[in-house]
Amino acid sequence: VADAVEVAFHRAVLRLLDGRGTVLVAVSGGGDSVALLHLLTRLSPKLRPRLVVAHLDHGLRRAASADRRFVERLSASLDLAVQAASQDVREARRKDESLEEAARRVRRAFLLTAARKAGADAIATGHTQDDQAETILMRLARGAGPAALAAMQPAGPGPFIKPLLGLERAALRAWLKKRGLAFRDDPSNESLAYDRNRVRRLVIPVLAKALNPASARHLVEAASRLREDAMFLDAQAQGLFAVMTGRRGDALKLDATALAALPHPLAARVARIALTSAGCDPRRISTRHVDAVVALASAKPGSSLDLPGRMVLSRREVLLEFRPCVFPRRS
Amino acid sequence: VADAVEVAFHRAVLRLLDGRGTVLVAVSGGGDSVALLHLLTRLSPKLRPRLVVAHLDHGLRRAASADRRFVERLSASLDLAVQAASQDVREARRKDESLEEAARRVRRAFLLTAARKAGADAIATGHTQDDQAETILMRLARGAGPAALAAMQPAGPGPFIKPLLGLERAALRAWLKKRGLAFRDDPSNESLAYDRNRVRRLVIPVLAKALNPASARHLVEAASRLREDAMFLDAQAQGLFAVMTGRRGDALKLDATALAALPHPLAARVARIALTSAGCDPRRISTRHVDAVVALASAKPGSSLDLPGRMVLSRREVLLEFRPCVFPRRS
Repeated sequence: VADAVEVAFHRAVLRLLDGRGTVLVAVSGGGDSVALLHLLTRLSPKLRPRLVVAHLDHGLRRAASADRRFVERLSASLDLAVQAASQDVREARRKDESLEEAARRVRRAFLLTAARKAGADAIATGHTQDDQAETILMRLARGAGPAALAAMQPAGPGPFIKPLLGLERAALRAWLKKRGLAFRDDPSNESLAYDRNRVRRLVIPVLAKALNPASARHLVEAASRLREDAMFLDAQAQGLFAVMTGRRGDALKLDATALAALPHPLAARVARIALTSAGCDPRRISTRHVDAVVALASAKPGSSLDLPGRMVLSRREVLLEFRPCVFPRRS
Repeated sequence: VADAVEVAFHRAVLRLLDGRGTVLVAVSGGGDSVALLHLLTRLSPKLRPRLVVAHLDHGLRRAASADRRFVERLSASLDLAVQAASQDVREARRKDESLEEAARRVRRAFLLTAARKAGADAIATGHTQDDQAETILMRLARGAGPAALAAMQPAGPGPFIKPLLGLERAALRAWLKKRGLAFRDDPSNESLAYDRNRVRRLVIPVLAKALNPASARHLVEAASRLREDAMFLDAQAQGLFAVMTGRRGDALKLDATALAALPHPLAARVARIALTSAGCDPRRISTRHVDAVVALASAKPGSSLDLPGRMVLSRREVLLEFRPCVFPRRS
């Protein structure tokens, strides 16, 4: 009887591996990437591309050399070449980056270089459905907008592919156990992404156990549906903004009557685009500012409003006028 | 210096209590409802309505009589009348209800009766922002659609008001501690809603600690924005469906060219409405069915598709035709 994980993996890689001669496999030594490597090696000779293993030590974990030895031994046992490297992410970190962002950048650069050396036309990483759900929850909890709901895609950007994206971490762990395959405990991320690890160990498993084993899948599906709605309305709002606005010198003028007539999901979006176009820093535009702009469209002529970035919004006869503040504000 | 919780509460009740003579306060004895009761009693005489306490023992918890004694003593100390009752929710449970649904129905009926007896024109419950976020997460994890994102409203349905809906549980707990006010540990829900309690104890606190203290608020805000988008598109789709369809006898006919020309968020919605209108059981309509209907709108005439509820969908020259299956299917 075919194993469910192997069947699902087979279906996923059919499309992803189509025509790929050599695939570089990013292996940290943790359960996800080790499962990915074993699943790839077990594909039928016809499907199976040439495989090269890549392993990066981020310099963030005490057990890093043991992780590297584990990946090297595993690759040797599978008769695969390994490209391993060490790079201190703390040292490589730029001023405007979090440690996690720096690690992502360094890892990406390493994998792209390793792929070039190996002559690989794809780079496979071990992202699972749980990673997707975690990312979505974390972004929502941090207060990001609909862009937070962007799901990872199994193919891209560039040569990157994520063959495990439709599989659950628990199913992969059960598969490793069933096949008697060893992996390192949580290796790459321990000290790197403490927050994500807490979400990983607690949030998704609790939702899965308490509510529904398919919680991760449901979250990913809902996010993708909701994001599609949001992006569609964003595009409509861009079109409306284009026909509702004009510029004269420093001032941006917006048709107040038309804005007041729009249903709220579109009015709020047009107001946000107008605030950004007028020169307000997008990071400083809050829902409160957006709603104030929409409200001003129905206010009486002569009303005005201070906006972030030293901008003033005034209600004229039939227009809203955004312009830079002329007089220095008293603070 | 005014306390932040008291200020936020005061702002919330200004609107909610406007014109209410007598308010029935639902008090389980747990931290949320005890904080609600104390905050209400501490309002200025001008704002403060007459208060009557209501307490229901669901018959689900061993410590229930201690909870009831606690609420009775607390009410006596505040010089308030109590209406307490016991009702065995397990016994009252109907076949088609979960224990949680039965408890909600029984509690609601009890509170409405108690309000009538007390001559109350509002019923205040202790739902917090955390309850909102928990409900949204639980529904998303269970696989509900955009309706899952429906946020509770501070006023309604009927006489119910939720004055704590903008406040965080942690802030309320800190306030109780600061004021030296006692409450019972997790009284009403212990055995009643085991799942919700696991989400409550683990999920929201983990998100708050690991990511952002305002996680609950961010989740609620994102949900409300996304739901607004979804409901707006639902309404557009209803309008489109009305002009794109016709009936002849048992058959529902849908303009295939028009459906194929719609952007996916609207096409999927119109297809779902069509499936429901044609008589398919909404609970059995999956994303797969919806996408199959949309795909058939671009397929060549003569193609057809079996649907749940013994319905058949056929692609005619310019129409999609939904009709009941005529021949018995071989199974």
